[in-house]
Amino acid sequence: KKLIKKPVNQPRFEKYVVPMSLHAENRAKLVKALGETLSAAGKENGVVLLQGGEQQTRYDTDHEPLFRQESYFAYLFGVTEAGFYGAVDVATGKSILFAPRLPSEYAIWMGKIQPPQHFKDKYEVDEAKYVDELSATLMELGGEGGAPTLLLLHGKNSDSGSWAAPAEFEGIGSFLVDKTTLFPVLSECRVRKSQAELDLLRYVNRVSTAAHIEVMRRVKPGMTEYQLESLFQHFCYFEGGCRHCSYTCICASGDNAATLHYGHAGAPNDKILSDGDLILLDMGAEYHCYASDITCTYPVNGKFTEGQETVYNSVLAASEAVMEAMKPGVAWPDLHRLAERRILEGLVEGGVLIGSVDEMLEADLGAVFMPHGLGHFMGLDTHDVGGYPEGVKRSEKPGLRSLRTARTLEEGMVITVEPGCYFVEATLGPALQDPDRSRFFVLEEIEKLRGSGGVRIEDDVIVTADGCENMTDVPRKTYEIERVMAGESWPLPVSRG
Amino acid sequence: KKLIKKPVNQPRFEKYVVPMSLHAENRAKLVKALGETLSAAGKENGVVLLQGGEQQTRYDTDHEPLFRQESYFAYLFGVTEAGFYGAVDVATGKSILFAPRLPSEYAIWMGKIQPPQHFKDKYEVDEAKYVDELSATLMELGGEGGAPTLLLLHGKNSDSGSWAAPAEFEGIGSFLVDKTTLFPVLSECRVRKSQAELDLLRYVNRVSTAAHIEVMRRVKPGMTEYQLESLFQHFCYFEGGCRHCSYTCICASGDNAATLHYGHAGAPNDKILSDGDLILLDMGAEYHCYASDITCTYPVNGKFTEGQETVYNSVLAASEAVMEAMKPGVAWPDLHRLAERRILEGLVEGGVLIGSVDEMLEADLGAVFMPHGLGHFMGLDTHDVGGYPEGVKRSEKPGLRSLRTARTLEEGMVITVEPGCYFVEATLGPALQDPDRSRFFVLEEIEKLRGSGGVRIEDDVIVTADGCENMTDVPRKTYEIERVMAGESWPLPVSRG
Ligand SMILES: [Mn+2]
Ligand SMILES: [Mn+2]
Repeated sequence: KKLIKKPVNQPRFEKYVVPMSLHAENRAKLVKALGETLSAAGKENGVVLLQGGEQQTRYDTDHEPLFRQESYFAYLFGVTEAGFYGAVDVATGKSILFAPRLPSEYAIWMGKIQPPQHFKDKYEVDEAKYVDELSATLMELGGEGGAPTLLLLHGKNSDSGSWAAPAEFEGIGSFLVDKTTLFPVLSECRVRKSQAELDLLRYVNRVSTAAHIEVMRRVKPGMTEYQLESLFQHFCYFEGGCRHCSYTCICASGDNAATLHYGHAGAPNDKILSDGDLILLDMGAEYHCYASDITCTYPVNGKFTEGQETVYNSVLAASEAVMEAMKPGVAWPDLHRLAERRILEGLVEGGVLIGSVDEMLEADLGAVFMPHGLGHFMGLDTHDVGGYPEGVKRSEKPGLRSLRTARTLEEGMVITVEPGCYFVEATLGPALQDPDRSRFFVLEEIEKLRGSGGVRIEDDVIVTADGCENMTDVPRKTYEIERVMAGESWPLPVSRG
Repeated sequence: KKLIKKPVNQPRFEKYVVPMSLHAENRAKLVKALGETLSAAGKENGVVLLQGGEQQTRYDTDHEPLFRQESYFAYLFGVTEAGFYGAVDVATGKSILFAPRLPSEYAIWMGKIQPPQHFKDKYEVDEAKYVDELSATLMELGGEGGAPTLLLLHGKNSDSGSWAAPAEFEGIGSFLVDKTTLFPVLSECRVRKSQAELDLLRYVNRVSTAAHIEVMRRVKPGMTEYQLESLFQHFCYFEGGCRHCSYTCICASGDNAATLHYGHAGAPNDKILSDGDLILLDMGAEYHCYASDITCTYPVNGKFTEGQETVYNSVLAASEAVMEAMKPGVAWPDLHRLAERRILEGLVEGGVLIGSVDEMLEADLGAVFMPHGLGHFMGLDTHDVGGYPEGVKRSEKPGLRSLRTARTLEEGMVITVEPGCYFVEATLGPALQDPDRSRFFVLEEIEKLRGSGGVRIEDDVIVTADGCENMTDVPRKTYEIERVMAGESWPLPVSRG
């Protein structure tokens, strides 16, 4: 089918209105899970209290970076403004938001000062008050029993190693606080997504998918990497209303593709695209704090070389094998190994490696070419929470130890499938020095590939009852990419006999 | 002249290569000024030590917001990477950068690990070392005299009220520290821009100017405000290489224009543009940490109404009067008053106000319509430093007290000229209740304007030896705007007889 020409300047995607019932459902899920956990531990019910993000300023200046809500707070309340608190009474499920009391100059500089009722209506909570009423309101929730126990969020993020900071407020000293119960329960709630969350994730994936295709059509040798970042961001915002990206765009051409998180301020997407190079584009939009995370890799000039095709098809075979195998009950580390196997098989077939793939896996050769994990949970954070709950251990083996989760798949999980194959000096160098691994190398082929960067193919996938659903729909086969880059529509027109 | 069609996908602006001599010059200026200050105070020379910005993560996650260097550090060293320190020996002028020693995984995830020599060459400093060599290196600078005095940056930013945080490092206890001398001297250095700084500011202004014109040509009723933000950002990045904007874009249509800093997360540029409304666009790109800050106001449908023209031309008259009067020796508060006078005169002429403009000024009526200052220094920060050095007092009068500087103009200062006239409930309401001010109102005209938003016209201006240079060149006269919105080129073609 042909692309329908949209009216001038109208967004391609209709405004996605997020129903606030999404957050009510999230709260209900938490209340149920917490009730069970507390009663199993013989503890009394308490009141969940979260502190939302605060507006920051840059260094000592009055420059205010665009505020983005803290993800746990966003999960439960969906509040887009800074400076809020939110409470949920576990016994009754009652939800209360606390809005900051704003100074009168706010009306001149920042906008209309809204009363609590405005936020009660906007976020569909049971009650809304001012932050300065927080202590008294929580006390009332305790009723005759006196000050209720506050369930505060405190725990370690397994991707960053940083700790979630429990809420603080004036008067907290009058309450009992429980800083251990909430974190694992709330994190676990976020792991399996609701239908409303999945719909939202599908939307932001649709926008990002279309943006990737737009960029794919525009890439030409001589452009600079950051121009693709700019095109992507513009498409997602202008056409899809996505003001944030989930993470800094990685627009890595040629050897830059071997730097997994290229694109940051120290390596800022500033190389000119060379005819003959591949470009690896890892970019995803965010909407209402929900992420997408998609990588496409293709030739700058629109035509794969034979060597590029060898590497690319190895990675694509891994991606396809993983998605075929994905379903509840399958352990993610096994799929990581499966991806490594397919990639190594592809490299053997392409004449880059020689020998037994089983022996290669035994020697951890997979991690030389794919030094990152196969994929990660995705939701409110790009690297979403819950990867290593209590009882799930991180492997110590190369490759497997880089996995952001070692869990067994369950229905409703959303995870990225992102096999990659890179020619990274930092892993290739040591492997070449190590006879146990270098024995598999066809040295002149490896030499040809050194400095060529690498390939990553990343899709965002939902685990369903009996398999998976790939939310990402971009050209993946080399012929599909080449035809779309040459100007054909996507999906490709059905070929006529 | 016609716009020349640029080759497909090539940026419209050639890459601006910032000479590192800009920062060497900044350092030399500081060394000279510090030498004088220290010797006048009978103090010994010391070593300036600044700590650059650190990479942040969002809340407890591993999400890394795009790093942007701290402005004082950027001024002296131009370093774009996080985690650096920089020292300047006042006695010799010798400059030393200290780079973080990166872990080996950095090579896989973030890019090539560069030795200090790389940064010495890149930033043209006299020496480069690792951060873990900081203490020993500083000690050596002291020579036979022992540990040198470290001049650290500590002082209050007059726009934010926040304090610059002095450098900290392991071993600082072995040094004498002076936390009072550096801040006022370094801030003062930043107030008068060098030729290299002015060239850079002109560049980023050129890009922003062109981006505003691009947006102006695209605005149509039915679009959403944020689509203009997206267009602006995309143009500045794709065409001009500006990855950051200086501040969050303000795209305020209709009554939103009365909110001076509209566009933040609590008021996120999400209104649909209405036929008949004005739109106020306050947007500026940043390049190599140097800012621009431009506001255009025009009708969404491309044609001013008579009422809109009254308000707009009052503000334009103020802008023109101020720029005509600007030159070294003129006090900025006097120009603020001049702007108020022109705006009030315009409103009298348009039949919105009645009575003596002198009496209106006496009654502080100006601040009802322009509740912000006439303009602010601009440089590495949008609201640049040095507005209130010791001895310069902030007025307590409405309007004047909002000025971000009360200084007398000097050659080389860069300041925004941004008169505005708004119909803000928060100032209009009280004024209507106050007989001393409401006596000037033509009530039915004021009623018509309530809720109509407002007008701001903002240019970025250099104070020259005998006047000023306006770096901003966008259509300003109502007929210019209307013709450019109708598709004519800018500058307008010279009319044929
Ligand atoms: Mn990913
Ligand atoms: Mn300004």
